[in-house]
Amino acid sequence: MPFKTIGLIGKPAHEGANKSLNAILDFLRIKGCRIIVETKVSDRLNGNGFEIAELEDIGKQADLAIVVGGDGNMLGAARILAKHDVAVVGVNRGNLGFLTDINPDDFEHQLECIFNGECVKEQRFILQVEVYRKGQLQSTNSAINEVVLHHEKVAHMMEFEVYIDDNFVFSQRSDGLIVATPTGSTAYSLSGGGPILTPNLDALTLVPMFPHTLSSRPIVVDANSIIKSKISFDNTANLQVSCDSHIALTVEPGDEIYIKKNQDRLSLIHPKDYNYFNVLRTKLGWGSKLY
Amino acid sequence: MPFKTIGLIGKPAHEGANKSLNAILDFLRIKGCRIIVETKVSDRLNGNGFEIAELEDIGKQADLAIVVGGDGNMLGAARILAKHDVAVVGVNRGNLGFLTDINPDDFEHQLECIFNGECVKEQRFILQVEVYRKGQLQSTNSAINEVVLHHEKVAHMMEFEVYIDDNFVFSQRSDGLIVATPTGSTAYSLSGGGPILTPNLDALTLVPMFPHTLSSRPIVVDANSIIKSKISFDNTANLQVSCDSHIALTVEPGDEIYIKKNQDRLSLIHPKDYNYFNVLRTKLGWGSKLY
Amino acid sequence: MPFKTIGLIGKPAHEGANKSLNAILDFLRIKGCRIIVETKVSDRLNGNGFEIAELEDIGKQADLAIVVGGDGNMLGAARILAKHDVAVVGVNRGNLGFLTDINPDDFEHQLECIFNGECVKEQRFILQVEVYRKGQLQSTNSAINEVVLHHEKVAHMMEFEVYIDDNFVFSQRSDGLIVATPTGSTAYSLSGGGPILTPNLDALTLVPMFPHTLSSRPIVVDANSIIKSKISFDNTANLQVSCDSHIALTVEPGDEIYIKKNQDRLSLIHPKDYNYFNVLRTKLGWGSKLY
Amino acid sequence: MPFKTIGLIGKPAHEGANKSLNAILDFLRIKGCRIIVETKVSDRLNGNGFEIAELEDIGKQADLAIVVGGDGNMLGAARILAKHDVAVVGVNRGNLGFLTDINPDDFEHQLECIFNGECVKEQRFILQVEVYRKGQLQSTNSAINEVVLHHEKVAHMMEFEVYIDDNFVFSQRSDGLIVATPTGSTAYSLSGGGPILTPNLDALTLVPMFPHTLSSRPIVVDANSIIKSKISFDNTANLQVSCDSHIALTVEPGDEIYIKKNQDRLSLIHPKDYNYFNVLRTKLGWGSKLY
Repeated sequence: MPFKTIGLIGKPAHEGANKSLNAILDFLRIKGCRIIVETKVSDRLNGNGFEIAELEDIGKQADLAIVVGGDGNMLGAARILAKHDVAVVGVNRGNLGFLTDINPDDFEHQLECIFNGECVKEQRFILQVEVYRKGQLQSTNSAINEVVLHHEKVAHMMEFEVYIDDNFVFSQRSDGLIVATPTGSTAYSLSGGGPILTPNLDALTLVPMFPHTLSSRPIVVDANSIIKSKISFDNTANLQVSCDSHIALTVEPGDEIYIKKNQDRLSLIHPKDYNYFNVLRTKLGWGSKLY
Repeated sequence: MPFKTIGLIGKPAHEGANKSLNAILDFLRIKGCRIIVETKVSDRLNGNGFEIAELEDIGKQADLAIVVGGDGNMLGAARILAKHDVAVVGVNRGNLGFLTDINPDDFEHQLECIFNGECVKEQRFILQVEVYRKGQLQSTNSAINEVVLHHEKVAHMMEFEVYIDDNFVFSQRSDGLIVATPTGSTAYSLSGGGPILTPNLDALTLVPMFPHTLSSRPIVVDANSIIKSKISFDNTANLQVSCDSHIALTVEPGDEIYIKKNQDRLSLIHPKDYNYFNVLRTKLGWGSKLY
Repeated sequence: MPFKTIGLIGKPAHEGANKSLNAILDFLRIKGCRIIVETKVSDRLNGNGFEIAELEDIGKQADLAIVVGGDGNMLGAARILAKHDVAVVGVNRGNLGFLTDINPDDFEHQLECIFNGECVKEQRFILQVEVYRKGQLQSTNSAINEVVLHHEKVAHMMEFEVYIDDNFVFSQRSDGLIVATPTGSTAYSLSGGGPILTPNLDALTLVPMFPHTLSSRPIVVDANSIIKSKISFDNTANLQVSCDSHIALTVEPGDEIYIKKNQDRLSLIHPKDYNYFNVLRTKLGWGSKLY
Repeated sequence: MPFKTIGLIGKPAHEGANKSLNAILDFLRIKGCRIIVETKVSDRLNGNGFEIAELEDIGKQADLAIVVGGDGNMLGAARILAKHDVAVVGVNRGNLGFLTDINPDDFEHQLECIFNGECVKEQRFILQVEVYRKGQLQSTNSAINEVVLHHEKVAHMMEFEVYIDDNFVFSQRSDGLIVATPTGSTAYSLSGGGPILTPNLDALTLVPMFPHTLSSRPIVVDANSIIKSKISFDNTANLQVSCDSHIALTVEPGDEIYIKKNQDRLSLIHPKDYNYFNVLRTKLGWGSKLY
């Protein structure tokens, strides 16, 4: 059995998620695994036979982390877990589920397969964003889906330059810029008109938000590029860089934002019958087989 | 001098192109190159001191082919030249000029640099399309920019399935499908809402044309994928596959279309100060440097 | 009873449509209506007690025309029927059904209501297109959904100017131009990125097809405007104007195309519970009520 | 002379605007007009011979208000001036200039024509937005360009229902919704993918912002419709309604937002050679006449 220490992570105060967490706990007890439950959901779990720890410590100790919730919960957990050598699998208790592909009604069979090694393992690269002010690193964070540079206020234009590997690409007046990974290309970036990048693609997409110049278009670049944005001094107020809509770093006029591949990778585990295009087709309502 | 035998290729019956062709001919005579002129423009060239040959033979014999015209002329020449070991450079006498980046007013200086080895060499991959009928290869061709599957008639819907590396992706009712290279991503695909792929990206984009399902979106996939389209038997009339809008292969209901990387590459030569993003920014009217 | 003479029109050689046609025929016999069946479906109808006529004559004689089929069948019939004083209702035996809103499984109840006057009556305006060559009217036709100006060949650019009420608006190099009514705004125009115009709006939308200039955008104008397109002499081949993708008029370089409101109106009858936004929301998969 | 009392309004602390304001002041002195200068720019104006007043009072007393600045300045002034019986004309000292169409380098000739009655007068309708909480009117304001409903934070989804004249249209999870007038259809709405509505059109466009459902599309509706948005109780934080990006009203989960035509109209004066399509074509870089 490849997975001995299992982390259990979830959406707190969500009835369906709690139900799944307890059922998975029972399953793991029978398996005889060492079980570590995330502190913030531990008071919803029945019985005993499990340790309690923060997400960071689960990352350090577990072989496998099971995240119960929606893609939002997965993103929050994955940003931390990706720093450690732990596989991650999602049980869907939310709306979308590009990342949480285990059906909660059938989790036993699917986890059984995964414990038997009948599963698909996948590495997803993630982003690192760094904010420099007058040449000094001001703040940094990571993103699974996307980094978004934007005004603090909606529908307020900002002005910035974009460089790729030190080549000047464009200056832009817009509501902001989305830089998305293939994983994030089916999330916010897609709503903003960005293309879908298949997960195996080593590429990023840059998608302008409400650009003033109507010929602005999404660009897809090598994921090993360093994307730099120089924030114009003419911006009249503070700006932000968001990671996965969870974390916001403050940006001031004149700052330089660097976005590049993080050295960490997210290790995702899928059920053995996982097929990216099936998920995509189902979620987006695309046409199924003709015959 | 790296280039000894030079092919001279052009847009026939175009005054500006003829002027440039003659001026380049003079330049090459002074250089002492062996010069081979494409048959269809040879009667516009003054004096002598050059051989005449078809494009295919220029590809076989020349070290460098100089194409004078617009991107359309370059595409036509490049589809043939890419089969051979010959570098290609374009002198712009057309509208757009993503591929023909030598300014005709300054060609002498730029060609001089190129002959001195002060230039940027670049390999662009190209596409191969194959039409299979009842399991038999029916026709095949190659494309620099894009392969377009479509109805013979505009504004008529067709129905087909798409597979990537034998994984079913979607079925679609639409006017057709564009499969574009990075080179082609700034051409027809862009007009149809496709993303821009930087030339160094080993990727393709699939862009639906007037899709009936409104959630259809451009997808970007690994360029080493094999794209297969199965044409529905329910299509009421003949269809086509176009290569760079120049070549049209007939497609019938029930056919299978394979689109993949061609083994040939196009060797492009650019002036030393060539910068892809400068070209892009200028052509699309994007914002220039702020300070 | 407001409707005494009923026309019965359908999709020939379609099993479901034939079944509905016969069932409606039975219903009408019981009602004691005078029944006129369109010639091309008459051999599929059982028994007797009905006259047979061409569509044009049904338009002249019937008070109500019942069209069984998809939106395509409705469009074909409506272009003819709109010339006459006849109400039209659709029974859906096709894919989409923006215009054919009677459910075939429940037609009796719905037709019963309509015969009792419990229905929604609506007038939809339609388009007139005229092709002028050297100042002479060359051909003309009408369209319920849209007029499309385009190259005979897919993915071939054409060049033209557009005037609105003799004001020059733009010249464009593109695959063509869609001019759609509110009725057509949920059809081809929508696939091409055009906006949805509610049926009560006295407006037209002009939607560019694969425009070369990336800042080209859909425009919505007063439906009482006269749209003129001057076809550039520089187009290298013949072009076309299509009406509802059914009728194609030949266009040559130098021609002038006029598009304006037709004096005829289409009189549509809907079931009394008809709600345009319900249809729209269902067809497009938009979100339903939250509580 | 139709205009006797002239209001002078401007962009404070902008060198070019100040220069134009002083030049116009000289022009008006020679004309012998009664001149009222907006308080906030009055200290930049040289000499005397003018009164000083707030915008609201200029609206009450002036026949003509001259706004010097960009479209942003015009919007700010026009929201106030539209309440009163005063014509408004713009002198462009900003970036865009859809509303400020007098060229500052040639203002004398153009104002001269306008004072001689050689000008184009136009009425533009404007929007009224009302926020209701538990059935009580909470706040209200007006907008020339657009009303935007959105989350306080960028890239955060909100949930709401939309009704048109009490007909339920859709529920939506998105970053928000833009409701734009024809005047606003070339501003923020256009950047978000909305259509251009010609100024004479009595219509509004509703444009979704980063909609979660990919089949969401811009809709164009009769401008006499009442647009209602019911804000879901499930939104986790406060939201906002913005008018022309200048004014923000706070919105809470459960609120109802009404957007409808304001009874006031904006009276715009243009130079006699004004042509909407010329402005549009120039601003958007569309193709000019072919011959």
